[in-house]
Amino acid sequence: MGVIIVEVMPKPEILDPQGKAILGAFPRLGFTDFVGVRQGKRFELTVDGAVTEAHLEQARKAAEELLSNPIIENVVSVRALED
Amino acid sequence: MGVIIVEVMPKPEILDPQGKAILGAFPRLGFTDFVGVRQGKRFELTVDGAVTEAHLEQARKAAEELLSNPIIENVVSVRALED
Repeated sequence: MGVIIVEVMPKPEILDPQGKAILGAFPRLGFTDFVGVRQGKRFELTVDGAVTEAHLEQARKAAEELLSNPIIENVVSVRALED
Repeated sequence: MGVIIVEVMPKPEILDPQGKAILGAFPRLGFTDFVGVRQGKRFELTVDGAVTEAHLEQARKAAEELLSNPIIENVVSVRALED
């Protein structure tokens, strides 16, 4: 079974309240190295057999049409998972 | 500014209702190649300057303690973003 990874992040100009909440919690837990946090999504799409270029093309289309909201999010990566 | 990517996925044995919902929607939208979908999270942690091994160590700790729930999720990747 092949796996395709799709990664989606909020656009830079969009407020990310989850990221802000994490950034606010970090110092209280002793994490002082980080100056910014953004939270997005990671999908694993499984296909029968090895990942082909046709699978990747369908995954890119699904990423734009279903897995992300193009108004507020960018698809940052669509790639086959390497074993 | 350096960026560290942290990726978190539901454990394989944990039900993933969001992934199931997406899998159910795929055929209605003409996506027929995919036999499984899992949805997880992707974080971007920003640090001042270049990413160092100390930053990565703190990110690994944050991933385990704050960014994931170890009962139901696995941290699948902690790495510096390459430009």
